[in-house]
Amino acid sequence: MTRVALVGATGVVGEEMLRVLEERRFPVDELTLLASPRSAGRRLRAFGAEHEVRPATPDAFSGVDVALFSAGSEIARALAPAARTAGALVIDNSSAFRMDTACPLVVPEVNGETLDGHAGIIANPNCSTILLVMALAPIARAAGLRRVVACTYQAVSGAGARALEELRLQEDADAAAKTPRATVFPKVIAHNVIPFVQAVGEDGYTTEESKVRDETRRILGRPDLPIAATCVRVPVWRAHAEALHLELERPLTPVEARRVLGEAAGVVVAEDDLPTPREVAGTDEVHVGRVREDRAFAPGLALWAVMDQLRKGAALNAVQIAECAMGVGAESAESKKMVGGPEA
Amino acid sequence: MTRVALVGATGVVGEEMLRVLEERRFPVDELTLLASPRSAGRRLRAFGAEHEVRPATPDAFSGVDVALFSAGSEIARALAPAARTAGALVIDNSSAFRMDTACPLVVPEVNGETLDGHAGIIANPNCSTILLVMALAPIARAAGLRRVVACTYQAVSGAGARALEELRLQEDADAAAKTPRATVFPKVIAHNVIPFVQAVGEDGYTTEESKVRDETRRILGRPDLPIAATCVRVPVWRAHAEALHLELERPLTPVEARRVLGEAAGVVVAEDDLPTPREVAGTDEVHVGRVREDRAFAPGLALWAVMDQLRKGAALNAVQIAECAMGVGAESAESKKMVGGPEA
Repeated sequence: MTRVALVGATGVVGEEMLRVLEERRFPVDELTLLASPRSAGRRLRAFGAEHEVRPATPDAFSGVDVALFSAGSEIARALAPAARTAGALVIDNSSAFRMDTACPLVVPEVNGETLDGHAGIIANPNCSTILLVMALAPIARAAGLRRVVACTYQAVSGAGARALEELRLQEDADAAAKTPRATVFPKVIAHNVIPFVQAVGEDGYTTEESKVRDETRRILGRPDLPIAATCVRVPVWRAHAEALHLELERPLTPVEARRVLGEAAGVVVAEDDLPTPREVAGTDEVHVGRVREDRAFAPGLALWAVMDQLRKGAALNAVQIAECAMGVGAESAESKKMVGGPEA
Repeated sequence: MTRVALVGATGVVGEEMLRVLEERRFPVDELTLLASPRSAGRRLRAFGAEHEVRPATPDAFSGVDVALFSAGSEIARALAPAARTAGALVIDNSSAFRMDTACPLVVPEVNGETLDGHAGIIANPNCSTILLVMALAPIARAAGLRRVVACTYQAVSGAGARALEELRLQEDADAAAKTPRATVFPKVIAHNVIPFVQAVGEDGYTTEESKVRDETRRILGRPDLPIAATCVRVPVWRAHAEALHLELERPLTPVEARRVLGEAAGVVVAEDDLPTPREVAGTDEVHVGRVREDRAFAPGLALWAVMDQLRKGAALNAVQIAECAMGVGAESAESKKMVGGPEA
């Protein structure tokens, strides 16, 4: 008897979580959909039935076994402790608990072992971090990692449904030779790229760039690993891409790198070497290509990695954490590599 | 009495060259427009008159003083020697002569002095190279350069008018929920990014990535400088962007870096720190922002640079080379920094 609550059920990631739970046949016996008062009352279809969305309040978690949060940091800080006190295992997709040492920060294929002895709240990493560590971990295991430079190409859906709508409206304006308006992003994103995700800190780095560094260091257990990122929004609907330039401890040829990446759980080496967001959208894996010796680092490797940031970058990773933490659903994992790969 | 020939006059860069010549009041007394037999016969308006486009043949350069080529490597190899023999100064926008030590490879603000003693053919660098060296040179002068990682965000117009049309048709297909077709690019570029510009070599690097390395080394006079690039096409109409991560010889604070960049001829530090291709299209300068200490390199700097690749990245740079080589037009340069800056 598993009772599941979804906080932020009406958001882009929340809806994706519902789909992932269904597809993976997560053993949901009772489903509670929660959202802001504004979205409460809406009805969503899942697991063959209609569910009314209820307001997310501290007393909404009575009897809940696992609460998947995807409602932002503020809501997570306000409600996760209540959910925990009510006995629920909390898996939170916001940044609220990611750097809290009491809460594991988990990508199951990379550091699933850190789930042992968790205290009830588990953090789901930032999407750009998940893409990065999924590509880095197999290489780090094979050849050691000295230095990381990562430049991102991030889809607008990472900023939610309003951002997707803004892109559409701006493209309509462009097609009609009218002036497009920007409200979600600081500049027009249609036919443009913007080197800004979220906010800029005093050191000139955006919060996204700092999350990528800090979370990657934590997940890889390398608190001093030099990681420089430039995070850039691009007019893509769905799936993030990253260009990676890596300095290694030991030489690793591109052929060997493709082999270790291809053997890693959840990673696919693209047959045509050119995975792109448009093709990768809707898939569960991290797709890599352009694997080559780096020209800035010796020994080093350069590669290109792409991932649906709403699936593995958010909803899927959260559900995988729930499966691991609750010991369910392993048999429903479609990829045979999910069980018993080098990471097991 | 200056007689100017334009080879490839009907292409995207050729048309931009005409505009730049007019805007800068280049002293054109006689204008010869040349193109492939397919485009011959078309009429273009420039300098207040209509000009018929003639076929580009070896005997078309009689009496020409300066021939601006923007017609690809094959045409350049076939016709530039004939133009040279006819007495014309050749400035070629293709890759045909860029690594030929008999031909200077020039960005006037960066290495204009290498024009001295040229032998009649001068090469205009690749657009991604021009953007890179314009941003690198002021920093290299101030703090020395040890290592460069560059990730590009390149506009479709870099692949010509057909590429722009392909993007438009694909966006129309997307808006109508039809399947878009790709012919110019290897994948659909609408709502996508493609880590591929031109072709892939045996070492896994694209020709664009190799040009960026080889040409930058030549222009900066640093044949061993480690330079790794990932070149990516993005669905932007016009203007390329680059995320740069640099290891330096000596520390340079972001404040100092912004100062030396702001003082450099042809470079503008964006007031809002977030220059984007859409805003920069149509301008002559390289616009920089996001200047910050690098987190992968110490000492190091990270920054973001954007440039209209058809203007400074191609047409404008070629016309500037002509001005420098022929000693004309300096007074027509609009930026006061163009005369007597630190690069003079």
